[in-house]
Amino acid sequence: MSQNTVEHLSQSAVVDSASVQPFPNSKKIHVEGSTSDIRVPMREISLTDTVTDKGREQNLPVRVYDTSGPYTDPNVAIDVRRGVPDIRSAWIEGRGDTELLQHYSAHYTNERLDNAELAKLRFNLKHKPRRAKAGKNVTQLHYARQGIITPEMEYIAIRENMARAQAAEQGLLDGQHKGESFGASIPDEITPEFVRSEVARGRAVIPMNINHPEIEPMIIGRNFLVKINGNIGNSALGSSIEEEVEKLTWGTRWGADTIMDLSTGQNIHETREWIVRNSHVPIGTVPIYQALEKVKGVAEDLTWEIFRDTLIEQAEQGVDYFTIHAGVLLRYVPLTAKRVTGIVSRGGSIMAKWCLAHHKESFLYTHFEEICEIMKAYDVTFSLGDGLRPGSVADANDEAQFGELETLGELTQIAWKHDVQCFIEGPGHVPMHMIKENMDKQIEACHEAPFYTLGPLTTDIAPGYDHITSGIGAAMIGWYGCAMLCYVTPKEHLGLPNKDDVKEGIITYKIAAHAADLAKGHPGAQLRDDALSKARFEFRWEDQFNLGLDPDTAREYHDETLPKDSAKVAHFCSMCGPKFCSMKISQEVRDYAADNGFGLSDSGEDVIRMIDVEAEMRAKAEEFRESGAEIYQKV
Amino acid sequence: MSQNTVEHLSQSAVVDSASVQPFPNSKKIHVEGSTSDIRVPMREISLTDTVTDKGREQNLPVRVYDTSGPYTDPNVAIDVRRGVPDIRSAWIEGRGDTELLQHYSAHYTNERLDNAELAKLRFNLKHKPRRAKAGKNVTQLHYARQGIITPEMEYIAIRENMARAQAAEQGLLDGQHKGESFGASIPDEITPEFVRSEVARGRAVIPMNINHPEIEPMIIGRNFLVKINGNIGNSALGSSIEEEVEKLTWGTRWGADTIMDLSTGQNIHETREWIVRNSHVPIGTVPIYQALEKVKGVAEDLTWEIFRDTLIEQAEQGVDYFTIHAGVLLRYVPLTAKRVTGIVSRGGSIMAKWCLAHHKESFLYTHFEEICEIMKAYDVTFSLGDGLRPGSVADANDEAQFGELETLGELTQIAWKHDVQCFIEGPGHVPMHMIKENMDKQIEACHEAPFYTLGPLTTDIAPGYDHITSGIGAAMIGWYGCAMLCYVTPKEHLGLPNKDDVKEGIITYKIAAHAADLAKGHPGAQLRDDALSKARFEFRWEDQFNLGLDPDTAREYHDETLPKDSAKVAHFCSMCGPKFCSMKISQEVRDYAADNGFGLSDSGEDVIRMIDVEAEMRAKAEEFRESGAEIYQKV
Repeated sequence: MSQNTVEHLSQSAVVDSASVQPFPNSKKIHVEGSTSDIRVPMREISLTDTVTDKGREQNLPVRVYDTSGPYTDPNVAIDVRRGVPDIRSAWIEGRGDTELLQHYSAHYTNERLDNAELAKLRFNLKHKPRRAKAGKNVTQLHYARQGIITPEMEYIAIRENMARAQAAEQGLLDGQHKGESFGASIPDEITPEFVRSEVARGRAVIPMNINHPEIEPMIIGRNFLVKINGNIGNSALGSSIEEEVEKLTWGTRWGADTIMDLSTGQNIHETREWIVRNSHVPIGTVPIYQALEKVKGVAEDLTWEIFRDTLIEQAEQGVDYFTIHAGVLLRYVPLTAKRVTGIVSRGGSIMAKWCLAHHKESFLYTHFEEICEIMKAYDVTFSLGDGLRPGSVADANDEAQFGELETLGELTQIAWKHDVQCFIEGPGHVPMHMIKENMDKQIEACHEAPFYTLGPLTTDIAPGYDHITSGIGAAMIGWYGCAMLCYVTPKEHLGLPNKDDVKEGIITYKIAAHAADLAKGHPGAQLRDDALSKARFEFRWEDQFNLGLDPDTAREYHDETLPKDSAKVAHFCSMCGPKFCSMKISQEVRDYAADNGFGLSDSGEDVIRMIDVEAEMRAKAEEFRESGAEIYQKV
Repeated sequence: MSQNTVEHLSQSAVVDSASVQPFPNSKKIHVEGSTSDIRVPMREISLTDTVTDKGREQNLPVRVYDTSGPYTDPNVAIDVRRGVPDIRSAWIEGRGDTELLQHYSAHYTNERLDNAELAKLRFNLKHKPRRAKAGKNVTQLHYARQGIITPEMEYIAIRENMARAQAAEQGLLDGQHKGESFGASIPDEITPEFVRSEVARGRAVIPMNINHPEIEPMIIGRNFLVKINGNIGNSALGSSIEEEVEKLTWGTRWGADTIMDLSTGQNIHETREWIVRNSHVPIGTVPIYQALEKVKGVAEDLTWEIFRDTLIEQAEQGVDYFTIHAGVLLRYVPLTAKRVTGIVSRGGSIMAKWCLAHHKESFLYTHFEEICEIMKAYDVTFSLGDGLRPGSVADANDEAQFGELETLGELTQIAWKHDVQCFIEGPGHVPMHMIKENMDKQIEACHEAPFYTLGPLTTDIAPGYDHITSGIGAAMIGWYGCAMLCYVTPKEHLGLPNKDDVKEGIITYKIAAHAADLAKGHPGAQLRDDALSKARFEFRWEDQFNLGLDPDTAREYHDETLPKDSAKVAHFCSMCGPKFCSMKISQEVRDYAADNGFGLSDSGEDVIRMIDVEAEMRAKAEEFRESGAEIYQKV
């Protein structure tokens, strides 16, 4: 972007057009709750009919969890200069425990606002900061413990219960594998009361700052659908604010449940404003990064005062969760000395350096209760950072890592004492057989607070493919009980992820999260798999693409081999000829089964095929390519 | 390829130049066995020194298992018209139990040879077919049971013991995580006798037809390194013979341990000849595919005589293992009628159709002992096919699948009665929590015969990404005990894989296999991870790339962000400045640890860093891009 454009960012910024395309054959629907302002968005994918000898069979539309927000809602006009719709302010105001401030509380915020030079970069802020009234605690955890079911909780219950409700409508609720949840308590129905009780118990969090009313409420907890986070940020200049917003909208389009803004360098305050105001998902940050910028990168110059001001600055902007590496204690640091890869967490190394320079425990640890006071005034959720996470499989599950985990468990209890929501970050690089120990130890040490892990990477030998090395570990730890998986892109360890990398990372992690949901036996989770498999078996190509996580890529791969229009309207069987038609063989199996007393119904409802769909398709595709497209009629 | 080129294939075919490039900083070494003709190839990757304040520390080269064969040996002149070197004929002849035939035994082979039209397509065959002398059994299993250690077994022992030997040389044998092998019997040293005993027990197979003397011997078994298979083939015309050879050399370059040729259509006899003669890895086929072509695709017209002739045809060409779907019994077929995706194995559906049409058990089952007679005359290994494998997660682990598995176990015992080597194919589509049951049941039902699975795919909802959905399952089942993993490419279910897809599939499966080796605690397996992680932590970029599974992609991703030459020679720390140098922080940690009695040596041997390598690199990369390359000197 040219300097000229930067000058006018506040007037010129536009949404990424790729992020606002509707999904094919899909419509945005909203399910209403007990009041008309609780409108839970879902994506509904329409399917074509199954056509058999006996006629047509309707395939019911499939509803999927929708993280794409207003960007894919044709009824919402998107203007990134105005941000996304506010859907929560009335609920927040209705509780009567917050007040609008006339001025921002952070010194740094006011310094930035006073700087006229920055006007060109600034998001055109309309609203004033909100804070708890004196003596009030405005966290969802606080309400939950009072027995209050908030509108946010009801919203979440509808959202999480979606697949169950749909399976029940279709009479399919018992139609999936039972799963193995390793002691999770996944109910048959997600009710608002269940959401409340899980939050009250600390077993789930709803990251939602009162200054981020644009959020579509979501929950992170072991008894809910596994969530994924995408990281953005990393840019130093205002010129890339638009790119960062683009990564936000692109990442959530493909399935990111939360976004962490890891921006460093200059203008990160302004960058964050654009991101928060345009985000319908919770935003997380690592405040120590910005604090470090404020002391020009000199870790030992960090102070509690600077950090505190940074927390308030970001809390009043609307950041929903803060990664805070308060578990890096002096006594753990030397335990990393013999490691292959020392300390690889940036936050961890900053705090380790500070601790060594001052020869005392970090201000994150010593001022932890004061941090809680800030968190509860805005409902910012703790993401207690694992500063000593292993950076290689060699260092997995060592004393430093598990020592810190114990401390994070103690800090969790302090946070809970203040009714502050809290989840725990985890590794890193861990070979497969050591993953479960991480999950089990975390549940025990941290009293069932939700776990949020990066990967873990199951081997170190594949730079360029760490979305895959880590996707394996992520799926497994999700199955074992991890509540949210932080994505890794193919560029991990190598460079800055671009938009393609963001998408590849998100899709890989959606696979991991969904595989975990299936393995846990999350009710209704298999509905989409079954609908897609049925479409595949019936050669309903468009339905197969549209039900997939990435319809565009599936369609593109298909079209590389087969011409675009003809192949997808023709029933593929028409290419097989009478001798190897799956329909015919299916009928034979059914007749045989019936003749031999296997008791199959003759209702025509069972769709049975016997064919190697994959091999057959390949062979036929080849044949098709060679013979030309003449056997098809254009639509 | 034009018709003109096809005319001259036998004279014009050339090797794919991308497949014969040497790997960066690597050399092909050979470790000699007890006789000079046992020369086991390995790839040795040279590393640069670690440079610290205290001087230089040498990093020893890392040896890796090398599947790339003579194609990456600078001392071998590759000519695909002549095939790869024969390294086994002397061993085979030395045993004195085989004879060269003057004529091919299969009717079909002779028909093809008599067809002058095919001369242009034909590989320029020099050698005559070999077969066991009357009454002799020439399988490695037969020798093993006689207590004979063949040169092939010794070769394999050296190859499999490589990482252990290297770890011992470097004093690192105890330096890795212990692993959890679920009852596998992985020894501290792989000796020729151990190889023999595992083969004798049927717990491992050495797929090596006596008509394929070009093979670099390898082993498939639960107590050895996990192997991967790549599928090629699928083309109908002679014009693509060269492409198929290209996929073979490309696939083995990136790590395929065996290759299955799934060619269908015309000229598959000639295509196979080119593939076998150019392959240094075992080749598997599904003979029923070709048999079906011989009856023009009419499954019910298949006969034992046609199938038998096909087995002999392929055995005399040198195919090393045959997938045979002999477990598809009549009584199992109706069990598939209620499935979401019926029968999805092509071989399975062919046999099911045949069974229904004739209302009797298949000739594969009824003639199984005669098949064994053929197998033992050439040492072809059974890959007992899972014709009823699930094609969707919905159908996983059902009665049809496990019924067939029981039958495969019975057939295994028949094969073993004949001293014929045997392994078992497995699914397919299986959610994570049901994978282990597959492995456990297979071990029990099939008496520890090696398991060979496709994936399994852990969810059905990601067409276009099924290398990932299945890579997750493959890593897990490899950990649980699966001996070989059949790759899945991104095009699975959608279209024909191209060269990029082959590579993506192979690398994904190398990750899965290696992650499994680590988790099983395979001695020495962690050596490469540790060397790479150390290089990563020390910003030895070239070493990090070169130690990875795919140096080219790692380098390319890095170079997208950083300029090519300067970034890789400059020690990255020079960009960090004195305030955030990992070297400096490392020294602080070590000093602190020493001061506080943590007993760290002062020898300078411990390399300790404390920095968020990833985040730091990103931030610095950005800075670097903006500031230009001036701070670096060109080399």
